[in-house]
Amino acid sequence: MSDDLAVQTAGPGAVGGRATLSRIAREASVSVSTASKVLNGRPGVSPDTREIVERLLDRHGYSRRGAELAQGSLIELVFEYIDSSWSLEIIRGVEKVARQHGMSVTLTETGARRSTGEGWVESIISRKPVGVILVFSDIDPAYRRQLHTRNIPVVVVDPAGDPGPEVAAIGSTNWSGGMAATRHLIELGHRRIGLISGPQDLMCSRARVSGYRSALEEAGIPLDETILRRGEFIPEAGRVLALELLQLDDRPTAIFAGNDMQAFGVYEAARSLGISIPEQLSVVGYDDVPPAKWVGPALTTIRQPLIEMAEEATRLVLKLRSETVDNIRLDLATSLVVRGSTAAPPTP
Amino acid sequence: MSDDLAVQTAGPGAVGGRATLSRIAREASVSVSTASKVLNGRPGVSPDTREIVERLLDRHGYSRRGAELAQGSLIELVFEYIDSSWSLEIIRGVEKVARQHGMSVTLTETGARRSTGEGWVESIISRKPVGVILVFSDIDPAYRRQLHTRNIPVVVVDPAGDPGPEVAAIGSTNWSGGMAATRHLIELGHRRIGLISGPQDLMCSRARVSGYRSALEEAGIPLDETILRRGEFIPEAGRVLALELLQLDDRPTAIFAGNDMQAFGVYEAARSLGISIPEQLSVVGYDDVPPAKWVGPALTTIRQPLIEMAEEATRLVLKLRSETVDNIRLDLATSLVVRGSTAAPPTP
Repeated sequence: MSDDLAVQTAGPGAVGGRATLSRIAREASVSVSTASKVLNGRPGVSPDTREIVERLLDRHGYSRRGAELAQGSLIELVFEYIDSSWSLEIIRGVEKVARQHGMSVTLTETGARRSTGEGWVESIISRKPVGVILVFSDIDPAYRRQLHTRNIPVVVVDPAGDPGPEVAAIGSTNWSGGMAATRHLIELGHRRIGLISGPQDLMCSRARVSGYRSALEEAGIPLDETILRRGEFIPEAGRVLALELLQLDDRPTAIFAGNDMQAFGVYEAARSLGISIPEQLSVVGYDDVPPAKWVGPALTTIRQPLIEMAEEATRLVLKLRSETVDNIRLDLATSLVVRGSTAAPPTP
Repeated sequence: MSDDLAVQTAGPGAVGGRATLSRIAREASVSVSTASKVLNGRPGVSPDTREIVERLLDRHGYSRRGAELAQGSLIELVFEYIDSSWSLEIIRGVEKVARQHGMSVTLTETGARRSTGEGWVESIISRKPVGVILVFSDIDPAYRRQLHTRNIPVVVVDPAGDPGPEVAAIGSTNWSGGMAATRHLIELGHRRIGLISGPQDLMCSRARVSGYRSALEEAGIPLDETILRRGEFIPEAGRVLALELLQLDDRPTAIFAGNDMQAFGVYEAARSLGISIPEQLSVVGYDDVPPAKWVGPALTTIRQPLIEMAEEATRLVLKLRSETVDNIRLDLATSLVVRGSTAAPPTP
């Protein structure tokens, strides 16, 4: 163990002086062995003691030597839930770059959105990975500090929430995507465009809705709140909300769904009501997951370069372990993919 | 390191006596440190030396103490390619059981079917996982021995090839699945049932084709080789082969596809020829991946309980590290899921 030698320039919040592990142990009134257990994410330390030591590690700006960690061969990929084609694309992108570097990927599912689930951070620390890729952004700041004091770089991919400016993150241009989807429908002649959006607390949903509003405004089409709906990013939500929209007296001629999963639910709702796509209803999705090509008709959607985003995040996390990177925020471009689910509105 | 104490009863092929690591090092004319590097999958040993040490480990029936490994918290999940909804279902099942046991899952993509790709076994060994789940069955026997001498249990999930009887494996009833799909079409009145199967060298493909033949035979329908095709388990293969079948003068009224991915390709071929499903063509898939519900019409398919198979494989691998398990082969039942893609054949 070379923990005690592991001193670097003090980070923000440091109180100065050599923050050796033995000094931290002394201040916490614990043995060096206990402090080392906390540092290495090993069990056998009470939560209270762990918290005291963590706080001191952070306060002293303790930071492990980079060289020790750089030898590892694991990249940690952390999801809240692994639950859709979307997750698979991310896994594939991370795995691809990891393999090019002779590394493997460890998956963790924390099991709750914006989780404060127990134990997963300690597990990660104990494996000494070269870096962590988070597929959700609003990680508890205490967890972020824990990773920081161990010198484990973190990159957020697709920031659905709103990571602070100091957080390394790869996203995509959600506002432009929402704008492009809506413009496409307007250009086809639609004026009554229903919107099903993702959860309001996710930044990506809000950005897409904002793009939708901007496109309407640009075209001089007044916003009609009665054809806006909001729900989870799953087919069932799309189905239920589309049923509502499609049973309105003055139903929309097009629906822009929050993601492809919701769009698949819109298809189901339309089928069950005998409304044909695209003749009677145009549908646009978001993401371009592989099944979008297989549904009938194939789905017009906004392509989010998920694999590339994951690749970029992995390359960034590998860079961060050994060098200072100036540009730690990157939004990759989205693009409109026109397939069979959109057409001119039916003539009244 | 307690490698040198790590002696257990000699396995098959052992030459008797205490097979300590120092004895193995002596016989290989290398240092104990070199032998230990090989044992722990660490770098810095020439391929030749590695092979000599491996052979001696195997010959002496060397086996690491279980207790040392049982402490680990990693399960290794090895794919050839992570490339479809199918892979995601497996990942989800493994991850679910791993999480229940406070463990994490490390993913490896070997990158070639029935791979002899370099290095991934050493990486796995160096991480000291509690077990390995392989999503392909014909692993090189040398790799199997490497894992065996380290006392790392291996379970194969969905044996697509033909693992020997000594190999722990979770599969599903492919023959019954092929039979059920074909019977369903026969019961609807179809007599001319095209078959698109997966690759011939995969045992699962052969079992499904064999189930198809048995169902035809049972109904007294002669086998027509001209409407049998074979290809990779991807949509594009399904599309190309379905185009061939659907352009025959006496085209089939139904197609049983090797898996759902191929079935999605059949949909595309039918759409491009203006043939409507199920009115003019019935289609049955295989697997029941999530998109099967979203395509239009929703796909009738054989449900392979992929998540449950992965869960079962994970439970088995966890059991194997600490106890002798009598039943190391298990085939979970498949079932027919009737949706919208099958109907009576068109009246001529």
